[in-house]
Amino acid sequence: MTITTISSATQEVKIGFDQPFVIIGERINPTGRKILAEEMKVGDYSRVKADALAQVAAGAQMLDVNAGIPLADEPRILAEAIQLVQSITDVPLSIDSSIIEALEAGLSVYQGKALVNSVTGEDEVLERVLPLVAKYGASVVAISNDETGISEDPNERFEVAKKIVERASDYGIHYSDVVVDPLVMPIGAINTAGLQVMHVVRRLREELKVNTTCGASNVSFGLPNRNGINSAFLTMAMGAGMTSAITSPLHPEVMAAVRGGDVMMGHDPNCANWIKAYREPAAEGEGRARGGRRRRG
Amino acid sequence: MTITTISSATQEVKIGFDQPFVIIGERINPTGRKILAEEMKVGDYSRVKADALAQVAAGAQMLDVNAGIPLADEPRILAEAIQLVQSITDVPLSIDSSIIEALEAGLSVYQGKALVNSVTGEDEVLERVLPLVAKYGASVVAISNDETGISEDPNERFEVAKKIVERASDYGIHYSDVVVDPLVMPIGAINTAGLQVMHVVRRLREELKVNTTCGASNVSFGLPNRNGINSAFLTMAMGAGMTSAITSPLHPEVMAAVRGGDVMMGHDPNCANWIKAYREPAAEGEGRARGGRRRRG
Repeated sequence: MTITTISSATQEVKIGFDQPFVIIGERINPTGRKILAEEMKVGDYSRVKADALAQVAAGAQMLDVNAGIPLADEPRILAEAIQLVQSITDVPLSIDSSIIEALEAGLSVYQGKALVNSVTGEDEVLERVLPLVAKYGASVVAISNDETGISEDPNERFEVAKKIVERASDYGIHYSDVVVDPLVMPIGAINTAGLQVMHVVRRLREELKVNTTCGASNVSFGLPNRNGINSAFLTMAMGAGMTSAITSPLHPEVMAAVRGGDVMMGHDPNCANWIKAYREPAAEGEGRARGGRRRRG
Repeated sequence: MTITTISSATQEVKIGFDQPFVIIGERINPTGRKILAEEMKVGDYSRVKADALAQVAAGAQMLDVNAGIPLADEPRILAEAIQLVQSITDVPLSIDSSIIEALEAGLSVYQGKALVNSVTGEDEVLERVLPLVAKYGASVVAISNDETGISEDPNERFEVAKKIVERASDYGIHYSDVVVDPLVMPIGAINTAGLQVMHVVRRLREELKVNTTCGASNVSFGLPNRNGINSAFLTMAMGAGMTSAITSPLHPEVMAAVRGGDVMMGHDPNCANWIKAYREPAAEGEGRARGGRRRRG
């Protein structure tokens, strides 16, 4: 029963086969968000702050922080954003960059044990990112593509993941600290994308015994009612053994799918989380009437 | 690739591992519906008609018809209800009764190849229902409980299903005409109910090679946001290989979960059904503006 533990200074999150599914909030990411990018570039983190608080309130157990802004000082901005987010929330973070200096800047200010997002199977990337992960005692997201790109054959993606796990081990990083992203394709273009992911997730769990994550929203790219597709994908992926996802917790139907998935997997004892989230509040009038009767009694 | 074909006089529905999931509308059932029971008892089928049309419009590919009313002439009422429903819709029906005379009355008026709902693993029930299924060339829902009741052990439920499939074979009923209901327990009371169903469904599919169905709504009994639980259950059960369910198609979130499940399983080529169901209609104002420009051009 592999468990990946990620922490902040005050909170621990466990990603694992027997744990509730972990939602890593994806919103703090300037890619495709022009206003956020402009603000972060000039050191205005008000929107980062709002996004952090909203995602935690909606049920994210972790937050991803990305500062990939063209022509900006990404290492400085990423480090500042991480410090800001850690000053206002207790949830552990995933430090998201493709630039090694930005990952190092983020890790150097991070309080706790971070999730580094990400390393790929390319040799050059492995050689730069894994020593950093080892140095800071972090965990790492392993994306299953390499020099040859993203294979459409899920078994080739499995082999890339296996290579990363083995290489991580050479650097002293235990497989429980490698969270594999099997890569989710847009199902509107590749109709077998769902079956592919379920197949790889089962193999990753049974053979490599690693935890898994994914950028879930990619599956619905180009389709209407994206939250409906994302919900079905997440529930079915959980059934196949997926243990976390980097996605937005701000859509109630997606959170219901994940909470319902936890209930189905037996990861919500006595359905306590479900009942807490969806219990109908007592009607206000009824409450007042009871108070009245008590006062009269 | 087992296929169960059910038909009306004009339409065929295929339940199968490589087919879209089949929703059998559960609404035409007087159990717990006092007004419907009173109406059906006196030969007023207006509500039956409305329920039939609404469920087909909402996406049910089949309808279940039940006339179990205490102290009423169930065989006559069931036969009348079936004739009424077949006169206004083309979808195939499931004939639902625990009374052998009612099943026979329903089968004798039914146009097409019906699904008989249901037979259990009790010897006495098997000996009465299976000859009828064979005589009319129907398919049958096999509920996996027997004289000893409903076992909490999913493997015992599998053994009961196996017994029914074998006994059906003795009567010349092919296993492809037996659709097994593995019995869904309320997950609020039995937290492992979801895992149990997935386990049995996988075994039923791999070892007995039979199609499966279930009364899906039972899983959420006693919990708030029942449609949320039902949606997660159906999607995950589809991922495990369930091929149909007797449930209400009148909840949009449940239909989205099933349609999304079909997309994920690769059973909705080019996502055509999904796009048809959820395509955003062109904004009316935009349409008019374009028309205006065209006229000016």
